[in-house]
Amino acid sequence: MEKTLNVTVLGAGTVGSQVVRLITEKHDELAARSGARIRINAVVVRDVNAPRDFAIDPALLTTDAEAAIDEADLVIELIGGIEPAFTFVKRALSRGATVITGNKALLAQHGPELYELTAANDTDLYYEAAVAGAVPIVYGLRESLAGDTVNRVIGIVNGTTNFILDQMHTTGASYAEALAEAQRLGFAEADPSADVDGLDAAAKCALMASLAFHSRVSMSDVAVEGITAITAKDMDEAARSGHAIKLLAIAERRTDDSGVEGIGVRVHPTLVPLTHPLATVSGAFNAVVLECESAGRLMFYGQGAGGAPTASAVLGDLVAGASHKVRGGHAPRESRYAELPILDAGTAQTRYQMRLRVEDRAGVLSEVAGIFARHGVSILSVAQKETEDGQKANIVLSTHTAREADLEAVADALNKSNAVLAVESTLRVEGDR
Amino acid sequence: MEKTLNVTVLGAGTVGSQVVRLITEKHDELAARSGARIRINAVVVRDVNAPRDFAIDPALLTTDAEAAIDEADLVIELIGGIEPAFTFVKRALSRGATVITGNKALLAQHGPELYELTAANDTDLYYEAAVAGAVPIVYGLRESLAGDTVNRVIGIVNGTTNFILDQMHTTGASYAEALAEAQRLGFAEADPSADVDGLDAAAKCALMASLAFHSRVSMSDVAVEGITAITAKDMDEAARSGHAIKLLAIAERRTDDSGVEGIGVRVHPTLVPLTHPLATVSGAFNAVVLECESAGRLMFYGQGAGGAPTASAVLGDLVAGASHKVRGGHAPRESRYAELPILDAGTAQTRYQMRLRVEDRAGVLSEVAGIFARHGVSILSVAQKETEDGQKANIVLSTHTAREADLEAVADALNKSNAVLAVESTLRVEGDR
Repeated sequence: MEKTLNVTVLGAGTVGSQVVRLITEKHDELAARSGARIRINAVVVRDVNAPRDFAIDPALLTTDAEAAIDEADLVIELIGGIEPAFTFVKRALSRGATVITGNKALLAQHGPELYELTAANDTDLYYEAAVAGAVPIVYGLRESLAGDTVNRVIGIVNGTTNFILDQMHTTGASYAEALAEAQRLGFAEADPSADVDGLDAAAKCALMASLAFHSRVSMSDVAVEGITAITAKDMDEAARSGHAIKLLAIAERRTDDSGVEGIGVRVHPTLVPLTHPLATVSGAFNAVVLECESAGRLMFYGQGAGGAPTASAVLGDLVAGASHKVRGGHAPRESRYAELPILDAGTAQTRYQMRLRVEDRAGVLSEVAGIFARHGVSILSVAQKETEDGQKANIVLSTHTAREADLEAVADALNKSNAVLAVESTLRVEGDR
Repeated sequence: MEKTLNVTVLGAGTVGSQVVRLITEKHDELAARSGARIRINAVVVRDVNAPRDFAIDPALLTTDAEAAIDEADLVIELIGGIEPAFTFVKRALSRGATVITGNKALLAQHGPELYELTAANDTDLYYEAAVAGAVPIVYGLRESLAGDTVNRVIGIVNGTTNFILDQMHTTGASYAEALAEAQRLGFAEADPSADVDGLDAAAKCALMASLAFHSRVSMSDVAVEGITAITAKDMDEAARSGHAIKLLAIAERRTDDSGVEGIGVRVHPTLVPLTHPLATVSGAFNAVVLECESAGRLMFYGQGAGGAPTASAVLGDLVAGASHKVRGGHAPRESRYAELPILDAGTAQTRYQMRLRVEDRAGVLSEVAGIFARHGVSILSVAQKETEDGQKANIVLSTHTAREADLEAVADALNKSNAVLAVESTLRVEGDR
């Protein structure tokens, strides 16, 4: 007879209720796969009487997290946010319970303390569900690629912003209209700031960078720009030049100006050629491209959010965690031997596409080009055309790859130049150098 | 100080020499990640004087496999084929060594015996490199999706045939021309039969099905059709109807005519809509789509062959295997609790697109349609046109989904019908039901 393991589920929202349902319905399969009978000892909620997607046995519902955790062999944390999740997870780890969490914000802010608690108590911490839902990118980086050198991770890891940008791209909607539609369909929250300001993607970017580069990377290391400034006009111009606009999380191994090897981490809306695999990732789907020294380019693609897909990631971790409890062994521990420094975002090599409104007179293009030249930024292409009122001209300019700081200095100087009435948009470009 | 583990590498061909190079060059990183110093105790070859891609320390080269294996903590088998690989792997497992292999044929033919030896000797068997090179599909199925129910696996898992079909699609080349080009570039062997007859894909299909459905599936269970009969005309007609032709490995959980739940496994050239993610997988790349109950649709994409990509998969397994040797625990063992039966291929639900040359006279279409109707196969679309000689007519027919056996019976009956001069091609269709 298999050993029975107690599992406490913290939170019974969209993901938590699916996890409870699957543990119940798939009891025999989970036992055959993990070698342990999984018994839910408690489902911890704020209000035992709140309505739920799945009818959870009322005897399991409790508000007493401490008592539940103290009985558990494994704790699944799906509350989200920092507190009380942080306190609960620390309690579970301190008591030697295996913790499975989908909480990217908690890990990106307090990862080191949690990893140390995990090691000190000889237990395991799993978080496949924290990055890109059902897409097994944590497994990929932490296990499959353990023998390779990852040079770059580029991902669409936030379904909300991808849905909004996709709506704008396909329907010509404004940002506000697309956001409203996303909220109506449940793809965006009432307060969408964590998603649209890029913070959720930044937390995931930090987690992927930590795993890829065997170093500590926290959310505050990530240079972040959200999608709130993207206009229908930007979308239109992007399509015209054969691009889609995607919010990309980019983590790369690179050197800075003085040759120091380190890590660059950034999240920003990006022009991606329509022929690039990431350009075709639509709606609430996620995808992550890994550029590796030996493996070359790999891509993982799937549903990045939602109750059942995220629950699939949690249950994969549950089988691994339960199996280790009964058969011995451990999940990989935090790997930070490389101790690569985080490099200044200004030293990143990027490309810009800029849209300028300029005075309609002779010599303007030469003045604009002069500003680029003075900052050592080489221009790849220029297209000039009149605006509707016939009085002012638009210029769309693409640069060659240059230092991010030099590109920012160009944008500053353009803003101050008399010839330039407005820098209407500045977007980075990836994928077609 | 870390423990030192002896690793024997069997074979120093394209993959083996890359594995030896990486173990040497990445010694410190592999130690930091696995907790063990990896020491190559021997590289076993047939001829120690043969020229190699990478200059292997001559002191390591030996033809004495037995002596090398008997000293090893881990054995990496990259010889390929059944013998002597089978004998060597059995010897290694019997002595408690962890085995890492890229040998799909060996696993698809003798997997059960090897899994039993692994368990009996309390050791580990890894084979990420056996399916789709650097694409971590073994990890995905064996670990990430351990908590989900996989319903279907559809993959492009043979780079040689994908390159040939891609050449035919993009250049209009005949099969023979495209094969010659693949051989010239080193993508196809002098005797290409294992690839072009679909046997390599069938072995991988069996391995993926075993993992996905927690049941034993061997290569002989797979219904196989290769690509040698595909003509330039087929490619042309496929493009005309918005499809690419891909050699797909399909493993599915389904029921047969009497409602028995089981496994269907087949490999055949298939029409795939150009909008489907698998249609854009070009050249020697591999991709696998998983359809899962909770996770929904996932896709893994990357380089399916080649020295360095395959070595990346081997080294990922090496880190896992070495880590278990020093930190305890095991790789997942064979999981076959579900014991699903292999269903008759004739009970699969497929769709056909057929090209017929028919007599150019009134009533022919009605006779042809009658044959479909008599076998209960419903026609989705028919296009009729004259051939160049103006004397005979061509019909391109697409069916709705039907039993494979009924579709085969239709093809037989058409071949015997007076109205039909020739059934010029019969291709299955996937992905746009």
